[in-house]
Amino acid sequence: MGKITKVSPLAPEAFPSLPVIEGVTFSAAQAGVRYQGRTDVMLALLSPGTTMAGVFTRSATRSAPVLDCQAKIGMDSDAGAAIIVNSGNSNAFTGKNGVISTRAVTSAVAEALGLPETRVFSSSTGVIGEPLPHERITAKLAELAGSMDKGAIASAARAIMTTDTFPKGASAEIEIDGKTVKIAGIAKGSGMIAPDMATMLVYIFTDASVERIDLQAMLSALTDVTFNCITVDSDTSTSDTLLLAATGASGVKVSRETGAFREALHGVMLDLAHQVVRDGEGATKFVEVAVTGAASDTDAKTHAMSIANSPLIKTAIAGEDPNWGRVVMAIGKSGAAADRDLLTIRFGDLLVAENGWVSPAYDEAKAAAYMKGEYLRISVDLGLGQGKCTVWTCDLTHGYIDINADYRS
Amino acid sequence: MGKITKVSPLAPEAFPSLPVIEGVTFSAAQAGVRYQGRTDVMLALLSPGTTMAGVFTRSATRSAPVLDCQAKIGMDSDAGAAIIVNSGNSNAFTGKNGVISTRAVTSAVAEALGLPETRVFSSSTGVIGEPLPHERITAKLAELAGSMDKGAIASAARAIMTTDTFPKGASAEIEIDGKTVKIAGIAKGSGMIAPDMATMLVYIFTDASVERIDLQAMLSALTDVTFNCITVDSDTSTSDTLLLAATGASGVKVSRETGAFREALHGVMLDLAHQVVRDGEGATKFVEVAVTGAASDTDAKTHAMSIANSPLIKTAIAGEDPNWGRVVMAIGKSGAAADRDLLTIRFGDLLVAENGWVSPAYDEAKAAAYMKGEYLRISVDLGLGQGKCTVWTCDLTHGYIDINADYRS
Repeated sequence: MGKITKVSPLAPEAFPSLPVIEGVTFSAAQAGVRYQGRTDVMLALLSPGTTMAGVFTRSATRSAPVLDCQAKIGMDSDAGAAIIVNSGNSNAFTGKNGVISTRAVTSAVAEALGLPETRVFSSSTGVIGEPLPHERITAKLAELAGSMDKGAIASAARAIMTTDTFPKGASAEIEIDGKTVKIAGIAKGSGMIAPDMATMLVYIFTDASVERIDLQAMLSALTDVTFNCITVDSDTSTSDTLLLAATGASGVKVSRETGAFREALHGVMLDLAHQVVRDGEGATKFVEVAVTGAASDTDAKTHAMSIANSPLIKTAIAGEDPNWGRVVMAIGKSGAAADRDLLTIRFGDLLVAENGWVSPAYDEAKAAAYMKGEYLRISVDLGLGQGKCTVWTCDLTHGYIDINADYRS
Repeated sequence: MGKITKVSPLAPEAFPSLPVIEGVTFSAAQAGVRYQGRTDVMLALLSPGTTMAGVFTRSATRSAPVLDCQAKIGMDSDAGAAIIVNSGNSNAFTGKNGVISTRAVTSAVAEALGLPETRVFSSSTGVIGEPLPHERITAKLAELAGSMDKGAIASAARAIMTTDTFPKGASAEIEIDGKTVKIAGIAKGSGMIAPDMATMLVYIFTDASVERIDLQAMLSALTDVTFNCITVDSDTSTSDTLLLAATGASGVKVSRETGAFREALHGVMLDLAHQVVRDGEGATKFVEVAVTGAASDTDAKTHAMSIANSPLIKTAIAGEDPNWGRVVMAIGKSGAAADRDLLTIRFGDLLVAENGWVSPAYDEAKAAAYMKGEYLRISVDLGLGQGKCTVWTCDLTHGYIDINADYRS
């Protein structure tokens, strides 16, 4: 952790140019929570009238900041809001100290910014089980509050990184009723990625005007088809948090029925989710797993995640081996309905297996050539019904073991 | 596959000396199914009056030989029996050819040994999805049938190996009613180990006289606390098969109520299961995960397997890092009941965490020293109820990736 890692080969060429969202300002600082020589705290300030929605990890051992956010997210308020995030320490499994540290941070932010404490949302990410030196964060609040800048979202994205090899951002601009509505989001995440409800740390901002209940409904529904459909290593974080803030500064009213906004938000969330996979620890391949023809959507997701989490499939992909037999294995073990003789398996456009056996058209040389690509697609049709699901993952390489065998050292 | 691999550092010093089980003979041959220069077929012949029991993978994509065994295992017969096993090709997901190959082998064995075909059980292990060249096996039947030897169980153990780095055997001898009863078993398995019902290939023989229904009851119950409690990589094989044959040659009648026999059988099964973990692909550590105080035994197993299958925990163990925060994470994600503040976690005898936080007694240096051992124990008490379960696994190392990134090449 904190060691110099080369950037993922699947990283975008550069951090995208994100639009300014009116009603949000950002700042970042070097608090030295754990890392030295880099920013590790970010603060976002939302203007009065902003509505907030959030989804969080369902882990039974979730962290103190997550529990605090969950207690606050359903409240209505016109007072504005703030989001404070530190990297380097997750403040998870820290007992009563966890609650004390979270309250110390949120109350200090509330005081510094003139907000009610119920409107200050905090996240912490990093090592589990060590006390959060919250005084290092509160000592930086004057500096943070004094340098709020509506153009500083990229600095915020960098401050929340842990084992990430690149900062993650995505945006959309759409026309609704002749006016422009903007969405911009940032994310961190690289390992311990198998979201269950929400995932990792993700913050998305829009200048649309959205009722809180509609904002939450859209966020929850879209999380199920974006962040809840990615996996790096099947391990679910204790700190997963996704917050969505709508400042209303555009003056454009949007509801859960506004298709254009919903689609744009979906696109931003999917882009950020994919960037997390592309920064999966040790990843060299980005893999889409599409399951169709399942007995139900739930069954389709069970099969897709069984494939995406299989160490044998992930190592075969790392080795560029079109080992479709392991795909058959993963379907067989998943527990969801499958009929061996009705399966159709494709790698990209290449038909691999059908009718319970390898396809007569299958060409191992072509499949091996396909596996050399960085972006791979494995699709399985079960031939049973209409259920479908697409998930995204990466390969399992020596890099994952290098990163995780000595994460704390 | 088939490449020269150095023997697991967790291997026993030598293959154990197994007792002769009267009523069973063995032979092995080089059929060249896939490997060259080594035996790859084994035949076992059971005397008339032998009762048979079996447990098999519950994979929805299980292989043709597994389906064939399942169809036969519940039949009563006094005609004797045979077990024929090949390595190098699993005859799984081979469509109609799979059935044809299985029948070709079992009918040829039946003819060569003068048995009804319903009493010939076959297993195949190795690559999935390639047609089994069964004629290479049947061509060796005369040689196999002509060299049956009651002392050749070690040769049989070697012939069924695939990525195994050592042959696996275990035995027990007990006195019942003043007579000696013997049990001897062999196993293969190294990767694709996350048994669901039975596991891998395991063959156990005893000279006890046991009714088929009692033999099956004991086998099923003991499988749940032995082979169903190990995992190498969370991937469940399409070919898992465990056969238990009781020849009755000792003249000692045994039922499911015979405690001494049941205990001895349990010991042999646990020994073989542990040997499979000790030969886990790339393994350098043998890890026992013991969960107590769960709301139910099922919950305890869910937690234990969540810990044992976590890539982050397995890589931390490989790196000799006492990263107990990841144990907290695995409990949190498992879905079974847990209360963060009631957890007690120990590494060996070292108290690591209690009351929702690291223990005041915890000494990182001592824990780090403990992690350098080859045999590690992680225990978790949930503080909720009486449910308990112990499972066994290994670490996740570069070796696993080396082996599996080019298994088919």
